[in-house]
Amino acid sequence: MDDLPTLAQVAAAAGVSPATASRVLTGSVRVSTSTRRQVHDAMSRLGYVRRRAPRGVSNRRSDQLIAAVVCESPQRLFTEPFYARLLSSAEDTLAGHGVPMMIMTATPNTSTITAPPLVSGTVDGIILIGARERHPILVTLAASGIPIRCVGRPPDDIDIPYVDMDNRDGGRQAAEHLLLGGRKSITAIGGPPGLPGAADRLEGFLQTLSRAGMINVPVAYGDFTHASGCHAMQWLLNRVPHLDAVFAASDTMAAAAIQTLRRAGRRVPDDVAVVGYDDSPIARHTAPPLTTVRQPVEELTSMAVRLLLATISSGETPSNNPTLPTELVIRESA
Amino acid sequence: MDDLPTLAQVAAAAGVSPATASRVLTGSVRVSTSTRRQVHDAMSRLGYVRRRAPRGVSNRRSDQLIAAVVCESPQRLFTEPFYARLLSSAEDTLAGHGVPMMIMTATPNTSTITAPPLVSGTVDGIILIGARERHPILVTLAASGIPIRCVGRPPDDIDIPYVDMDNRDGGRQAAEHLLLGGRKSITAIGGPPGLPGAADRLEGFLQTLSRAGMINVPVAYGDFTHASGCHAMQWLLNRVPHLDAVFAASDTMAAAAIQTLRRAGRRVPDDVAVVGYDDSPIARHTAPPLTTVRQPVEELTSMAVRLLLATISSGETPSNNPTLPTELVIRESA
Repeated sequence: MDDLPTLAQVAAAAGVSPATASRVLTGSVRVSTSTRRQVHDAMSRLGYVRRRAPRGVSNRRSDQLIAAVVCESPQRLFTEPFYARLLSSAEDTLAGHGVPMMIMTATPNTSTITAPPLVSGTVDGIILIGARERHPILVTLAASGIPIRCVGRPPDDIDIPYVDMDNRDGGRQAAEHLLLGGRKSITAIGGPPGLPGAADRLEGFLQTLSRAGMINVPVAYGDFTHASGCHAMQWLLNRVPHLDAVFAASDTMAAAAIQTLRRAGRRVPDDVAVVGYDDSPIARHTAPPLTTVRQPVEELTSMAVRLLLATISSGETPSNNPTLPTELVIRESA
Repeated sequence: MDDLPTLAQVAAAAGVSPATASRVLTGSVRVSTSTRRQVHDAMSRLGYVRRRAPRGVSNRRSDQLIAAVVCESPQRLFTEPFYARLLSSAEDTLAGHGVPMMIMTATPNTSTITAPPLVSGTVDGIILIGARERHPILVTLAASGIPIRCVGRPPDDIDIPYVDMDNRDGGRQAAEHLLLGGRKSITAIGGPPGLPGAADRLEGFLQTLSRAGMINVPVAYGDFTHASGCHAMQWLLNRVPHLDAVFAASDTMAAAAIQTLRRAGRRVPDDVAVVGYDDSPIARHTAPPLTTVRQPVEELTSMAVRLLLATISSGETPSNNPTLPTELVIRESA
């Protein structure tokens, strides 16, 4: 028990009905500006604090707030098309349930700034994106007890439920396509090794080549940016001048590889076959259009959102970590 | 007074010192995973709710949370380079003060979903971006009493403090440059008329032409997207086949205009001069590079953040709405 005023008291002080006061709180447009001001004035005067139902007791969704936390810098949030697809899809799915979504970013350096509002009851659940090894916010969030669902498998030592894509099988499909195309000197541009999804797709790729007798495959690593794709491709060209294929762990890096190969006088796919990963919008706009592994980003994200909402309303610890299939999309680059 | 447990009681129940419990709450990395779990378990057991200091009483910034609210769809949030610049800059400035930032979007359709957590005490202040006429969230936020600062002037009927750029003078500079270049058949691609910044830059442009005796200037309107810039340029070409200049209200639309002009067989700037607006990164990558009006986005955003934080810590209603100058950057397109 405490002595905070109720919404009914606020309504009385504002001279409006409780239903009208409630409409002001929920942001309904069917209230005039002057009425809104009266209600907010009364709230300020009385020190009204909106109560949030204790977690697990209510599942009135209009009271909920979900955070999408991206383990990246704000700059990368806006330059990586993967995040744009994923977050737009998450917000659309949540809006379909009437639940608002907020976006936060956290690098290892800014985790101590981002974490406090997340672990102190501001949000009812978290969609976690881009979880990678040794990122300090993972331990904090995993230990917080807040309902959470990773999009993409988290590092092995972090106990957070997730939804994943079959990245290993995506790598396998890319390797088999290049082997079937008769490529003999195959190389790869990997993503950040600490990101489980990137590690998985490279592992599936290299294992398949290894089973075909191709070992010591040259690999350069990028961070999914265009610039890193150019540098990685140039490094591979210097090291293996007669390479005839490259598998890049993202479409952005594959597009950069195509550009770098063209500048080096190589034709794609005649001299060098290029396979990307994502099937993002840019895959259709490279010259030639990109053969790539399709990630079901939208399906994955809406599944993560639905599982998170189910966890919040049931109050039970989830035990399932579904994995969706990936699929090779063959265009002209390989 | 109420009977909620204190942090000291949580620490005692967890068998750790209050300082350690506090470090867990603030997300410090100097706490082991098992200790974190003990503290969070004790918090759950006791029903601990983190208290937020009443607004205006404390200015311990580590307790604060600021929302950046963008009056757009999540899709547009990620496709409009202006928002990426602005939000990256806002987050950097806030991180410099140790304050976390969350991002939310609100269209007229999703305002009733986005507004409730904002007006119910989740955040200590709001940076509002893209405020335009008849957007229902503006009335709700303006009436809420939460400290708020618009980046860009809000519509005239909305009483929210702001920081602005001198858009009118930006439009004037673009017009004078085209007049001094001897252009005789000048046209414009305006932004959304309900967005005060877009209306201001077009008004400054048309007023300057009018003072030079040029009236009935043809104007097509876009929504700042590439596609809308192409459509607007095509409409102008159909209507005024012999136009020799166009001023676009954003660099993205100016780049689209250049592309459309080239497809129609016009040379830029020989046949048609093109002036953009923003000086965004794409302005250096168009062919030819874009003459454009530089908006001081980063300076403007960090000023908005500093003024918002000052309002929160002082508890006083702000009365100043500073305006920063804009500047014509002359490259090759005009």
